[in-house]
Formats: sequence, structure tokens, C-alpha cells
Amino acid sequence: MTKIFNDPASFAEDQLEGFVSLYSDRLRAVPGGVVSHRTDTDQVGVVIGGGSGHYPAFCGTVGPGFATGAVVGNIFTSPSTAQAYSVAKAANQGKGVVFSFGNYAGDNMNFGLAAQRLRDEGIDTRIVVVTDDVASADEVSKRRGIAGDFTVFKVMGAASAEGQDLDAVERAGNLANDATRSLGVAFSGCTMPGSTDPLFSVPEGHLGLGLGIHGEPGIKDVPLLPADELAELLVDRLLDSAPTVLGGKPVGKRVAPILNGLGTTKYEELFLLWAHVSRRLLDAGFELIEPEVGELVTSLDMGGCSLTLMWLDEELERYWRADAYTPAYRKVSAATAGLRAASKDNAQVATADDAEYLATDAAIALGARVRTGLQRMQSTLVEHEDELARIDAIAGDGDHGRGMVKGIRAAVEAACALPDGSGAARVLSSAGRAWAERAGGTSGVLWGSALEAMGRSLTDDRESHSDNDIADSIAAFTDAISELGRAEVGDKTMLDSMTPFVSTLKKRVGEVGLAPAWVEAAAESTQAATATADLRPKVGRARPLAEKSLGHPDAGATSFALLVTELGDWLTTTEETS
Amino acid sequence: MTKIFNDPASFAEDQLEGFVSLYSDRLRAVPGGVVSHRTDTDQVGVVIGGGSGHYPAFCGTVGPGFATGAVVGNIFTSPSTAQAYSVAKAANQGKGVVFSFGNYAGDNMNFGLAAQRLRDEGIDTRIVVVTDDVASADEVSKRRGIAGDFTVFKVMGAASAEGQDLDAVERAGNLANDATRSLGVAFSGCTMPGSTDPLFSVPEGHLGLGLGIHGEPGIKDVPLLPADELAELLVDRLLDSAPTVLGGKPVGKRVAPILNGLGTTKYEELFLLWAHVSRRLLDAGFELIEPEVGELVTSLDMGGCSLTLMWLDEELERYWRADAYTPAYRKVSAATAGLRAASKDNAQVATADDAEYLATDAAIALGARVRTGLQRMQSTLVEHEDELARIDAIAGDGDHGRGMVKGIRAAVEAACALPDGSGAARVLSSAGRAWAERAGGTSGVLWGSALEAMGRSLTDDRESHSDNDIADSIAAFTDAISELGRAEVGDKTMLDSMTPFVSTLKKRVGEVGLAPAWVEAAAESTQAATATADLRPKVGRARPLAEKSLGHPDAGATSFALLVTELGDWLTTTEETS
Repeated sequence: MTKIFNDPASFAEDQLEGFVSLYSDRLRAVPGGVVSHRTDTDQVGVVIGGGSGHYPAFCGTVGPGFATGAVVGNIFTSPSTAQAYSVAKAANQGKGVVFSFGNYAGDNMNFGLAAQRLRDEGIDTRIVVVTDDVASADEVSKRRGIAGDFTVFKVMGAASAEGQDLDAVERAGNLANDATRSLGVAFSGCTMPGSTDPLFSVPEGHLGLGLGIHGEPGIKDVPLLPADELAELLVDRLLDSAPTVLGGKPVGKRVAPILNGLGTTKYEELFLLWAHVSRRLLDAGFELIEPEVGELVTSLDMGGCSLTLMWLDEELERYWRADAYTPAYRKVSAATAGLRAASKDNAQVATADDAEYLATDAAIALGARVRTGLQRMQSTLVEHEDELARIDAIAGDGDHGRGMVKGIRAAVEAACALPDGSGAARVLSSAGRAWAERAGGTSGVLWGSALEAMGRSLTDDRESHSDNDIADSIAAFTDAISELGRAEVGDKTMLDSMTPFVSTLKKRVGEVGLAPAWVEAAAESTQAATATADLRPKVGRARPLAEKSLGHPDAGATSFALLVTELGDWLTTTEETS
Repeated sequence: MTKIFNDPASFAEDQLEGFVSLYSDRLRAVPGGVVSHRTDTDQVGVVIGGGSGHYPAFCGTVGPGFATGAVVGNIFTSPSTAQAYSVAKAANQGKGVVFSFGNYAGDNMNFGLAAQRLRDEGIDTRIVVVTDDVASADEVSKRRGIAGDFTVFKVMGAASAEGQDLDAVERAGNLANDATRSLGVAFSGCTMPGSTDPLFSVPEGHLGLGLGIHGEPGIKDVPLLPADELAELLVDRLLDSAPTVLGGKPVGKRVAPILNGLGTTKYEELFLLWAHVSRRLLDAGFELIEPEVGELVTSLDMGGCSLTLMWLDEELERYWRADAYTPAYRKVSAATAGLRAASKDNAQVATADDAEYLATDAAIALGARVRTGLQRMQSTLVEHEDELARIDAIAGDGDHGRGMVKGIRAAVEAACALPDGSGAARVLSSAGRAWAERAGGTSGVLWGSALEAMGRSLTDDRESHSDNDIADSIAAFTDAISELGRAEVGDKTMLDSMTPFVSTLKKRVGEVGLAPAWVEAAAESTQAATATADLRPKVGRARPLAEKSLGHPDAGATSFALLVTELGDWLTTTEETS
């Protein structure tokens, strides 16, 4: 939802003021829009435009190698005839002007009337209309312009910067449009400044196939797809609508791809999708020339993306590759020309030397029990993942549940991948390393280091392990966490439920044996975890949100208590049955 | 909401694959992250990092003039020790490494352990922790790192590219951190891949002051502010927390500002806010050095923004201004060096020559009535604005209500600004030009041109206007729309309610007089507008969405019918009372 504005009615003008002040070193405001500062050589004016709300389209691509001027209409609304006329007059460097815009009735009329007026004054003015959206009509000339605006404008900007004349720039633009096809999907609608409701919405669990860039919903709602199938859909449908000839010759296999984000769909998502899109295009025999992945033609805060392909001939490829330097799009090939990939001297993560390892039978038996214990922990964490995420999200970043699950999964995998003759110390060390490595984050490194410390405390060369040895290993676990985390009891961290656990365990293990002592200790731990709700966080990510955290328990203290409770149940069962 | 993924658990790895394939000309994947290709001269390795979900932070700023490598953790989760170690090994060019990251417990631990390991192997490794977020703690060393990551990393990257040694790069980084302050606000939470609920939400009509970049909610929820007050809040609170000394000297008035978008808050909104932020900073006597406005440190699809200021001394300013060329951040000063602002040869929109204008008394009287009629139309459109927007949003872009209101407002203003001696023709021409100019869009140019045509048909040199003259002027209005819009009856456009209106009016005006004929014609028009619900759109923006449009009337046909109905009421009343 659009949140930053003063008067919604003047949003387009107000945002342009900030934009122009920011980029006054390279462009200036004129009535109706912006024009680029000039280079030393006069060029054909490439004047692009349409409504606002599509940044970086259109004013964000004004500059050397791209557009000479942009006409800036209201949000999602064609600029007026007078605006188009005014910007073109200012952009004209005596070599004529090409207007270019997406194929919409209002733009056709207003740019058309402005062109007529310019011609009447003796300024040679051409029009190149972009019609790339294959979902919008079967007949090419009736199609809308969406992200294909970018390829067509880029080609004309490059042609103009190269010193081509008006005929050549117009011809290149029309060739680029003939060569360009796009298809998009919408995940969610966009909201106009001042409105609280989006212009449309996509039903839960669906996507709108064939989106428009003015808040027009998709042509058809279909169920949401995983990324690989979405890539398949976009690539295959686009290839079905491929041009067959280009400038009189059959099209080749070299294409300039754009994977465009509509606003709310983030770069990480686009990169993920690109991995699938690019693979599918390569599999189909295409060569991908300087692909662009990012927000190039947006629709306010709409969720969605579109795939554009421009089939290249030699001329279009030269224009596509050419340098450009605008507020939002900058390509300077010299900047990467001197780089070379380093030799493959990648760090190898050191692993323990296995040559002389031998575990006692007791250590091997305990190792097997540790493996089972880890598996019990895994079930518990998977079961409570969402609950832990919820608790953590109150004053933290909500990743505790996922982090713990990732960690224990990695730990169990590593423990089970060890050879049969591995003892408890080795199992715990491997599990700990894997946990820290794969879970990442604070809890990852703490749990990982603590399991490693526990392993070191046990060693695999002993003939037996007493209940006290086990309790000592738990103390080693806790010490590692306390030392690395630099927290103290009362700071609202996992230590708050861990410390009472280990002190009760150590005190009671000699009196009642391991399993009963463990169960008592786990009950203390649970109580202590619940009591963290009354604490204010003193360290960690929850600290800045101390007020919000009050009344809710600490996620790390909670997960520890859950785990020792589960392990207590398991110890009791296995002692009874063994 | 995050919509594009396969397995949420491997989101971070999957997106990195697409990123690396896209930018393989300038960087490569190593275990744990990415490293830049090398230049000819060995440099200090600047290795940045943290969790994923912040693009372009962190891998998007790897490249010449910026970071040497980025460690890529899971979403919002510190990378592991092994990942940090591995990337640093690959990034080390024999001149040592500086790790730099935001101040979070997990990052401190993992980068700290990795640094220890690198030092043990003889690789000199330093650590620069970013602590810019003034909302997160009073004590600077306890503050979190948010968008200030960008200034600190940029400074170190520039120092390294300049050939500075490890001590100097580390010192520059710490100086940049001492000089940097940030404060952010959240409008809405972000959603982890695979989740359906955001990590937090901001209460309706509020903003969270002091946001975190890992889905941590703001420190405090306060009522949503208009842009100018939001700018005031951000600037004033940041200046209250300004550093006082920098490298032993009192801070000056030169600052590098960043207005950063968190993900869903769009560039247009940031530009709008920047207009206010920059004005307030300039008023406070600051010089703004190469400000950056855009998405630099994001938090998935979170809504919000933050303001960062880095106070500059000579050294920091040199590093801040230096060129850089990374996937997401490119600055090449040579690219704009040759540009010059054109002379102020802006187009002047031609206006009618007023010298010899003289209207008859009849034309002046009719002009007054036209003004009143336009005012009645304005009330009607304002009243029905939301309804028209709703109808238009079904298969169009939802701007019809706003466009019509903008148009009629401009028309009434222009009509009322004319001197008293203006006749109906002149009033309509001025109103039409203003409508087209200020409303933009399809309906703007159609209504504007049609009112102008209506004015031309009336002329201001007649001694009287018959009812037939009025009906003829309405026909001129319709003809203009039909000619310019190239639509036909049945295409589901405003023509569908306009054509029956004008034919009934022309037929009946001679028989029953203007007001009764008008009322009859308006009733026909209303019926015809309602009947457009059964039509499929054949032209205009609704055409691609023909199926969705079925069952709903056309917005343009509806607004025309509403207007003529209102004017019919008014004509009837004034005839009765006059």
C-alpha cells in the first residue's frame, strides 16, 4: 500500500520534484516532464513517457545512451497533449524527435496530437508504439506495451547516442518492437496513493496470468506455481508467440532477456526464478545476451513479474549492449573490462583427521543413543517450529523455529552419515559442526559449539560413562554457551532455562539416577522458561524491543526446555524398557 | 508476501544461484558466498555479509570500488563461521581481510570465530562492526546495524580500491561508522518464504518508529504521518543523535544522505519524501553530497524507509564520491562529466490570441450558464468518484473517477478564471483545454477535445442561440469523441450512452423544447449505459479483459449518463424558475 504522500492528487508532481532535485546533475525539469542535459553532439530526441507509478519507467531512464526526455503523466494516466508537446520541444536538438510509449488509447491520442502540433511547427516527429504483451491480444498491433518498453526505448536511445539520424532511430525502434515479446503474472494488486484498497486482488493461492502494468488484473487466474513451473509457463508461452522473421530474415537464437519485477516481488525472488528461466532458455538452444533481472517497469506496489525477450540481429545486439548512464539504469562496459576470475583457490573447510580414530564399545553404544536422542529432538523441533517462530517474532526476527529445525536436521544427517564405529564424542562433534554450519545465526553457532564442547567432554576412549559423566557433559554444553554468548542468567536468553536444568541435574543425578534427575531438571527448566516472560531482554536481538518482549517468554529458553522435556520422556521410557 | 520459491528451506541458496549466473562476468560463487573477480592490482579484501533477504545488501554490492566478497547466510540469519572463513580465504589477495557486518550477536560470533581461524593461519583479519541505528540503544556500541552498512562498506571498498593498506582500510571503516547515523520507520511487516503471515504487522493507520531490517517491528507504533511531517521526524531525531566529533575534530556540515526503501515502499514514494527531507536538511545548513535514494538495504517485502546520514571529512568524502561498479550499485563519474544543461529554451504552450475578442450579449449570457453547468457536473463527479473508480477497476485501471474529477476541476477553474465578458464558446474552449491538460489519460483528451469542439460549434458572435443550436453543439461534442476515439457504438465505450442521448435530443428538441427533450434523452442514455454491462469491450484498456468486463457497465458510458441526467435536472429547475 502506498504510504508516503501529502496530497494524493498531487502525488505525481510531488515525487517528480524530489527526483529532479536528486538528479539535477544530469537532467532538468521542463513543463510536463524531464529532459536530459546535452552532450557535445546534437542527437535525435528520444522522448518516452506515459503515466507515473512505473519507476524507473519512464523518467528513471533519461540520460546518456537512453532517452532524451520523459513525459510524466499522473499515476497510471496518459500525459496530456500539452505535456508531450512541451517535453518534445525541450528535447529537440534540431534533429527531430521520436515519441515512444506503450500502446494505450490515451497515450496514442495525446502523443499523436502532440506530434501533429510539432510537425505543424516544422519539427519532424515520429511515433514508435510498443506492443509487446502477448497476453493482451492475438493481433500484434492491438497488444499493450508492458516491460518491452525497456528494450525498445534502450535500442532507440543507443541508436540516437551513436549519431543515427531520425529515420534510422525510428526504424531501429520499430525493429526492436517487432523483435520483443513479454508475458507477465500478477500475485497481488497495487494501491493508488490515498486509497486503502488495491485496484484488484488475486484470489488466495492463485496468480493472474497476463498482467497489465496499470493495475489491470491478469487475463485469467490460475493456481500459484512453484518457481520451476512458473519459469516453464513464462518461457514456453513466450516462445509460442515468438516472432518468426526480423527485418526480413528468419529470427535467430540470440535473445536479450528481461525478468522484470512489478514492485513488491523482490530481487531475491527474481534471481531464484531467473535460475530456472535461464536454464530453460539455454536448454532450448538460446544464447542469452546481457540479461537484465530487476525492477525496470513497475506498477506501484504490485506483486508480480514479467519475462521479456527481444530477439536480436546484429544491429539490435549492438544497441542492446551499448553503454547507458541514467538515474536507474547504468551500463559502462569499461568498468568490468579489466576484471579476471581468480584461480580456483577456494578455501577448503578443514575436516578432522580420521586416520587413527578408534572408539571403545562403550563410546560406540553411547554414540548410538546420542543419534537416537538427536532424532527425538528433531521430531520435537519440527512439531514446535511454528510456535517458536511466533514467540520469536514478538520481539525478534522470527527465525528461531526455522533455524533450530535447519540445525537439528543437519545435525541428525551428519550423525547418521558417520561410520558405525563412531563414538558419542565424534557423533556430537560432527552433529555440532553441521548444526553451526547449516543453521547459521546466533542459535546455530551456540548450539553447534555447545554440542562440540559436549563431545569433547565425553571423549571416545573411555571404557564406561557414568551418570555423572553425562551430567558433566551437559555442564560443558552450558559453559560453552555462556562463554560464547556472553550472557548471564536474567538476561532473557536460553541460559535462563539451561542453568536451572544443569544445576538440578548435577545435584540430583547422584541421588536418584540419570532419568529421574533429568525429568526433575526438565520440569525446573520449563518453569524457568515460562518465567522469562517477566524479564526484559538485556542482550541479543530482542533487546531493542524490550517493552514488546515483556509478557512473552524467550524463544531460545523455550526451545531448550521443550527439548530437555522430550529427552527426559525418552530416557524414562528406555530405562524402563531396557 | 514472498511468492516465488520452490523449497522455502533452500530459498537463500536457490536465489544465489540465479544471481551468480547473472553476474558471472564480474563475480563468482565460492562456498559460503561470492567473491569479486580481481583487478590487476592486489587489494585488501573487504568481506561483508549477514543473512539473505536484504538485497542489494550484501552480494549486490560486490565489485570494483566496493566489497571484495560477501558471505551469504540464510534469510535474516547470520552466516556460519565456516561460510565466513571460506569467503574470506577466497577474497584474500595477500593483503589481509576486513570483515564488516551489522552488529548482531550471531554475526559477531560467527565472523569473530572465522577471523580467529584466519589469524591462526597467518591471514591478518580485522573486524569493523556497523552500529548506525540510533533507535536501538543509547550506547553507540550496542546499536544495531541497518542501512548504515552501505556507507561503511562503500568507504572501505573505496579505500581498498585506492590501494590503501589493511590498517588504513580498517581505520576508514571505523571512521565511517563513527560518522554514520540511521533511523527508520516501518509501514508493514515482511513475510518469510513459505509463510503466509508476516513476521509482524503495524496497526492500521500507524507506523513503527525505529524499524529493524530482519522483520523486527519498530520500537514504538505512532500514528501515520503525511510526508512532510515524516521527513521532519526522521531528520530532527537523526540530528538529535548526530556525532559531535569525527577523527578528533568537530563535525562539519557536509553529509552523505541515504533515503533507503525497505522493499514495498516504492521509488516514487521515496522521491516524494526526499523532496521534504532534502529541503529540511538544506534549511538546517547542511550540504548534501551525492545523496542516494532507493533500495539499498531491504527486508524482503517489508514496507518502510530509513534515513541515514554520514558526516563527512575530507577523507570520507573522497571515498564516498569514488566510482564503484557492482551488480546493484554503479557510479561512474565520467559518464555524466561531459553533460551540460541546455539553455532554457522550454516550449511555451501557445495560447489563443486575445487581442480582438468580443462576445455578443447572448454569448456572454450563455457562457454564464455554461459555467454553472460545469459546476453542477463537478458536484456530480465528486459525489460519484469512488463508484466510477470501482466500475473502472473491474476490467480497467481504476483511474476513471479520479481522472474525471481532475478534469472537471481544471475545467471549472479555467472557466471561472476568464474575464466576465467571455462567451460560451470561449468558456467551453478554455474549459476543454484545461480538462485535457490537467486530467491526462484517454477520458481527459476525449472530454477536453469534445468540449473544445462544442465551443467551436457555438461561436461567440451570434445574437441568439436556439434550442437547436444547443443540440447541434452536443452533436459536435459527440462527433469529436467518435472521431478521436475511433470507437463505434457497441464497442463498450462512452459512445454507447452518448449516441442515444444526442439522437433523442436532436429528434425531440424541436417538438418539446430543450429541457424536456434533454430529460428524455438522459433517460435513454442511462438505460444505454446500464445495457453496456452485456457488451464485450472492443477497444480501450478493458479489451484484454473482455471476460471480466461482462456483467459490468462501462465506466465512461456511466459517467456520461450521470452527467447528462444531472444537467437535465438543472435545466428543468432553471426553466421552471426563470
